[in-house]
Amino acid sequence: MTDPKQQNFFMPPEWYPHKCCWMQWPHEFDNKNSYKEIESWSHFNFEKGRYKWAEVAKAISNFEKVNMIVNPQDIEIANKLLDKSINIYEFQNDDCWARDSGATFLLNDKKKLGGVDWEFNGWGKFTPHDSDNKIAKFMIDKSSATYFKSQMVLEGGSIHVDGAGTLITTEQCLLNKNRNPKLTKGEIEENIKKYLNIEKIIWLKHGTDEGTDGHIDNIACFANERKVLALSCSDKQDPFYEKLNENLEILKTSVDAKGRSLEVIEIEMSYKRLIPNDDEPSSYINFYIANDGIIMPSFEDEKADKNAQKIIQSVFPNRKVIAINGIDISLGGGNIHCITQQQPLSL
Amino acid sequence: MTDPKQQNFFMPPEWYPHKCCWMQWPHEFDNKNSYKEIESWSHFNFEKGRYKWAEVAKAISNFEKVNMIVNPQDIEIANKLLDKSINIYEFQNDDCWARDSGATFLLNDKKKLGGVDWEFNGWGKFTPHDSDNKIAKFMIDKSSATYFKSQMVLEGGSIHVDGAGTLITTEQCLLNKNRNPKLTKGEIEENIKKYLNIEKIIWLKHGTDEGTDGHIDNIACFANERKVLALSCSDKQDPFYEKLNENLEILKTSVDAKGRSLEVIEIEMSYKRLIPNDDEPSSYINFYIANDGIIMPSFEDEKADKNAQKIIQSVFPNRKVIAINGIDISLGGGNIHCITQQQPLSL
Repeated sequence: MTDPKQQNFFMPPEWYPHKCCWMQWPHEFDNKNSYKEIESWSHFNFEKGRYKWAEVAKAISNFEKVNMIVNPQDIEIANKLLDKSINIYEFQNDDCWARDSGATFLLNDKKKLGGVDWEFNGWGKFTPHDSDNKIAKFMIDKSSATYFKSQMVLEGGSIHVDGAGTLITTEQCLLNKNRNPKLTKGEIEENIKKYLNIEKIIWLKHGTDEGTDGHIDNIACFANERKVLALSCSDKQDPFYEKLNENLEILKTSVDAKGRSLEVIEIEMSYKRLIPNDDEPSSYINFYIANDGIIMPSFEDEKADKNAQKIIQSVFPNRKVIAINGIDISLGGGNIHCITQQQPLSL
Repeated sequence: MTDPKQQNFFMPPEWYPHKCCWMQWPHEFDNKNSYKEIESWSHFNFEKGRYKWAEVAKAISNFEKVNMIVNPQDIEIANKLLDKSINIYEFQNDDCWARDSGATFLLNDKKKLGGVDWEFNGWGKFTPHDSDNKIAKFMIDKSSATYFKSQMVLEGGSIHVDGAGTLITTEQCLLNKNRNPKLTKGEIEENIKKYLNIEKIIWLKHGTDEGTDGHIDNIACFANERKVLALSCSDKQDPFYEKLNENLEILKTSVDAKGRSLEVIEIEMSYKRLIPNDDEPSSYINFYIANDGIIMPSFEDEKADKNAQKIIQSVFPNRKVIAINGIDISLGGGNIHCITQQQPLSL
């Protein structure tokens, strides 16, 4: 009856060596109407999306094994589109965002694997997502990890860690009343500290997208201890100028769990918006760190794409950076980081 | 018939996660006379030594599994002195220095394990060491690693790597005619590059001890990419003042495989010598990086011990530093790094 911290489990950073990567194959949701609430999501095309999920999985498989959870109804199309190297696990799922509905994997001091099964409520707005709420337990069972159940609602995309006691997140998401209306900020912090073995939480204010209520994985991530990559905006006319600069200021003046300041490396956003009347920026921060590679999104915005890739390559000099056109995934409300979930190498 | 580099194997740095640590249990060598050549080694006491080997093994077992190779003649005493958590492997061995007679473990791009079996000739001077020349193959077999045989004489203690293409070593050892008299410097470089997947070798001039002909692991090691810890000497009267300062100068003006300069962090030597008439300095650099810890030697030299531990802790803020009195090991001709050999975590 103890929590992960009491058992010396902690969440390793994404750059820690992986055993494999988990993904969910896009399932065409029965209750599609709920998506209409979000402008961009109504532009999401499942057919194009599936090709992109397959392309991302194949790119990751250059560096590590990929396990794809596929709804029994979609086995045929998954078999057709996925590279033969991808493991297919048949299991009922509603949707396609393994970062958010999947388990958060942990390691203990003996390098044994653990996993947290958070409550998942469809980002506080898209119900029902009951099958996706069972995905985390499925991943934990299949990987023979020690199982930890948290009653708190949390998506993996709303947190990033440095593996050394520090976590970054946004108030817009974690304190949103559509997630944990009965928990205070202090109680939410307490839960995170216990389940991920965290000592210091750095709270940014706002994210950039409405669907997830501002997930951190669109705006900032740790690239190493003391080193943060963050989305920036230099155009004062841009609707996100103030919010992103406020976040940068917080990062630059914060210290980590060990009291050390952070090096903040900025990546300028693409100012090209994907959909008319939708002002959410495309973000290069939404990349996946694979064992010896980085899979990052690009947005058919040549200058900004190149600049982002150059910065990411310089921050990860030993990893091969692969850019994949992320527009079709982005229209679904996330990007490459959102559709992946790393399982660390364990004993 | 290909070499490790062609098969995408490389030597991970010591801070890469370990599956376990290999050690050899001290065997009282039949041909003890050969040790008399080296002043300090005649002071080595096997009985005291065994207690220290057991103490180091127990300290490492806080962080990772320890496999101890024990000569059949020594099983009883090993069972008596070793902590129950230590795995005992019964196998003929001559001596006790797993860093030098053991395998050099590799990983490939799929995180599969490999191991190099170098020729071992008793540091070019202490023969016979025929059983110890079989230790590497034993370790590779037991760990189910892909086996690579090199015909070149090399001890693990004579090299350190950053895991990103750079290796440091000393000319005093690797170019010594008692190791590979028929190989040119270029051929030795070529072998290292092929077997460890190295692009750049930084050659220091001299080590500090006669027994190993100046192994690098007594004077400098990588603590991370671009970060080197090195033994320093500020006393101009000390016989090693010039040699160590020449090494520091080389490190500070060298670039790594990626063309980047190195940050050199100095650790002042202990000026207390362990034996009269023996001027070899005790070195704090001879520590072992375990999964979440550092096992370092101390030398009953309070001020220098404390200074070294403080620096090492600051360079490895996330690892618990354990200092063990290393005098009894040092009298045998090496220290904690010399009696350990990490096996990286693999798939």
